[in-house]
Amino acid sequence: MSNQNRKSDIGLIGLAVMGENLVMNMESKGYTVSVFNRSIEKVTNFVNGRAKGLNIVGAYSLEELVGQLKSPRIVMLMVRAGQPVDDFITALLPLMDKGDVIIDGGNSHFPDTERRWKQVEEAGLYYIGTGVSGGEEGALLGPAVMPGGSPEAWPIVKPILQAISAKVGPNNDIPCCQWVGRGGAGHYVKMIHNGIEYGDMQLICEVYQFMRDGLGMSNDQMHDTFAHWNEGKLDSYLIEITRDILAQKDEEGNYVVDLVLDRAGQKGTGKWTGMEALEHGIPLTLIIEAVLARSLSSLKGERVEASKYLVGPNRKVADPPADILDALHNALYASKIVSYAQGFALLRAASEEYDWDLNYGNIAMMWRGGCIIRSAFLDDIKDAFVADPALPNLLLNKYFHDEVAACQDGWRTTLALAIQAGIPTPSMSAALSWYDGYRCASLPANLLQAQRDYFGAHTYERVDKPRGEYFHTNWGGQGGQTSATTYTV
Amino acid sequence: MSNQNRKSDIGLIGLAVMGENLVMNMESKGYTVSVFNRSIEKVTNFVNGRAKGLNIVGAYSLEELVGQLKSPRIVMLMVRAGQPVDDFITALLPLMDKGDVIIDGGNSHFPDTERRWKQVEEAGLYYIGTGVSGGEEGALLGPAVMPGGSPEAWPIVKPILQAISAKVGPNNDIPCCQWVGRGGAGHYVKMIHNGIEYGDMQLICEVYQFMRDGLGMSNDQMHDTFAHWNEGKLDSYLIEITRDILAQKDEEGNYVVDLVLDRAGQKGTGKWTGMEALEHGIPLTLIIEAVLARSLSSLKGERVEASKYLVGPNRKVADPPADILDALHNALYASKIVSYAQGFALLRAASEEYDWDLNYGNIAMMWRGGCIIRSAFLDDIKDAFVADPALPNLLLNKYFHDEVAACQDGWRTTLALAIQAGIPTPSMSAALSWYDGYRCASLPANLLQAQRDYFGAHTYERVDKPRGEYFHTNWGGQGGQTSATTYTV
Repeated sequence: MSNQNRKSDIGLIGLAVMGENLVMNMESKGYTVSVFNRSIEKVTNFVNGRAKGLNIVGAYSLEELVGQLKSPRIVMLMVRAGQPVDDFITALLPLMDKGDVIIDGGNSHFPDTERRWKQVEEAGLYYIGTGVSGGEEGALLGPAVMPGGSPEAWPIVKPILQAISAKVGPNNDIPCCQWVGRGGAGHYVKMIHNGIEYGDMQLICEVYQFMRDGLGMSNDQMHDTFAHWNEGKLDSYLIEITRDILAQKDEEGNYVVDLVLDRAGQKGTGKWTGMEALEHGIPLTLIIEAVLARSLSSLKGERVEASKYLVGPNRKVADPPADILDALHNALYASKIVSYAQGFALLRAASEEYDWDLNYGNIAMMWRGGCIIRSAFLDDIKDAFVADPALPNLLLNKYFHDEVAACQDGWRTTLALAIQAGIPTPSMSAALSWYDGYRCASLPANLLQAQRDYFGAHTYERVDKPRGEYFHTNWGGQGGQTSATTYTV
Repeated sequence: MSNQNRKSDIGLIGLAVMGENLVMNMESKGYTVSVFNRSIEKVTNFVNGRAKGLNIVGAYSLEELVGQLKSPRIVMLMVRAGQPVDDFITALLPLMDKGDVIIDGGNSHFPDTERRWKQVEEAGLYYIGTGVSGGEEGALLGPAVMPGGSPEAWPIVKPILQAISAKVGPNNDIPCCQWVGRGGAGHYVKMIHNGIEYGDMQLICEVYQFMRDGLGMSNDQMHDTFAHWNEGKLDSYLIEITRDILAQKDEEGNYVVDLVLDRAGQKGTGKWTGMEALEHGIPLTLIIEAVLARSLSSLKGERVEASKYLVGPNRKVADPPADILDALHNALYASKIVSYAQGFALLRAASEEYDWDLNYGNIAMMWRGGCIIRSAFLDDIKDAFVADPALPNLLLNKYFHDEVAACQDGWRTTLALAIQAGIPTPSMSAALSWYDGYRCASLPANLLQAQRDYFGAHTYERVDKPRGEYFHTNWGGQGGQTSATTYTV
């Protein structure tokens, strides 16, 4: 029954798949939810359909929606990121009161959330920008929720957001929803989550191509392998669905995966993650390769043309070793460790730059359930940050450097075989180059600094002198005596 | 003598090394140059020192500088990119007349140039934002000059900018300075030039580390190898200075390169290039790896710490093949081809996006002399774009795919050895993965699209159906029936 006498606990705007499922989730936890949608017929259809007989109340205008809510009012937006969010905020502000809360649960870019947070707080209300991950199924059964914005609003929204979130832990009682930080911190953490998701998916694709093209494995064989891997250290949602996908047949008995066009879409969060890495100078190489691998895949026509002219090995792995599947497993696992190490390094840089004081262990636990990158592995990451909250890099944690040590023979074998067979491995290769660079006390950047000093008089520091002391050499007897430090007016 | 009776042809602001050398260059071509600097003593020192007896006139205020110029006046800024450029434009506009020209020759970011171009044109004057590359030596003897901005200003500034630029071609009469395009196009092309410079430098560093750590070569042996390479297809300024750097000793007989700290600096143009690639979805993987390799090098303290814990091979190449130096040469050359292919693909995307109608052959010739990336190789790029100005990718040109075909055994051998020895090769590996991906008619992105459809109902296209027709599968029998295309309000 729709309840006309009692006020609703929350209002939700935007009845697409994520919004509808979140409403169903909230209602199932005992909350009464008012719903609104710009196309009004969706309200009617929802209330008379899926929501029939539940504590879900339709509203046919924003005024009506706001009027149906308990105070302090909470209105959650589940609308397309961008202008629609701004439009609804502008429309809602005059209808709501000081102390009320607007939540944006879409995939907004964190600078937009920063801006809106200020706008809403200036109007005397509170603002929450929260990542919600888990796809349609997660929204219904329990997503990961990453809220940031106005700290004063956290006690107001905490009960409902934690109630609908996934739960993890031995007693299944740790909500995958904790306070992230002020301003845009919640959407930032969601952005990094999505970047890591790009990386995880690309790694699986590289392994899949190695199996399919390099080893000539059938979909059934690959299904079995991923099923087996999902029992071990790679236990995760994305491995699980890969297992399922490889077994899926259509009505005519064809494997669906073989019918899908190899042109990947993307919606921008991976790109934003890469730009943030460049902005802060954090080598997030694996995720950026994953983002750009999607871009390369989208050039389908060019690739088909290029495949006629560009020669190279035929992607068949000649004489693979007997333990090649173990090697592939280890290549994937070690690369994944590097990806998370890079991602958490970017979180650390952002936390310092934007003064967010992020809790990395909490973040790992928020991603532990409900969301797309959920995996057993995140427990180990949480443990590493509980042991040392100031850990500069995950790889400096003993558990993780031991894990990579154990995996690296297979990792190197896989990549050497891929290179000789002509199988592209952009993200796994990026991970190994990062690893070999990170463990290198002396990189060749001495030559690079010498080059910069040669042509641009940029000066250099010396290994045998204190840091902060700069030298210039008149290389080859050419160039002037003026160093670039004087390149000022 | 400083000439008080005749008006100057151009005024230049900013007497750091680049500015001073450009003034000397202009004067040597017969131009009279007025000079100003915010710290006035630099004007005095320059005019009474290096410029003594030349047609160089000191100005001790902007008013005096502008008053010394012929009409239409040309004032060139060689000041630090950022606020100083805006400050000088603001100060100059009221002093100059309609039809006068302000040139910014610094490393400005192209959106700033777009903004200033509009500002200056609105004031009735013309604006030129030009890349100037060649370091201090190039500035003095002939840099590459990449001007964009107000097309109406090109006839005014063309004589002097072409006069000071490097010259190439069989008769040494093709100026490395041609009109690039309107607005920020000149600084955009300079940005890409710098990105390519990052890539070229990183590739040389990777080969250097392979020789130094992997093969145990001495500086003298490496000097000889680079000297030899500079006679062939790798003939270029950066190979030439690498050769010189490896031979350079200090007063005590130590090789200077061994004293230089391996912590690379950067000033932002590489980062901007990477961000543009992400923005437009162009897989510019090699340059981004080069930018992030500098970032990784800057984490010297972390790397020294990590080197104690992270295990791996000791970077010695076991039993290198007899022709390993040829393999390294080919790895460097093939990777370089990929880097330019990626860079020109980004230029093409930008040209279309910003409506610049760039002439890629002209750009190759502008980079042919004077600038940091100058090389014989750019002639081949020019030829490819002259043969087909609409070439989608350099690798689709026969000369280049034949070159890569001839190089690829050595390329693959080098990378497989590096991986097994633990030598980081981020940019060369990125280049090969891109190449193997680009020549792949069927990438594993079919699995990725299936994953996206599984968890997010993002839908997919099918290989056996027309493009633009989208399908959704109820994978594993879970998830809703609502596809993400309905995720709207």
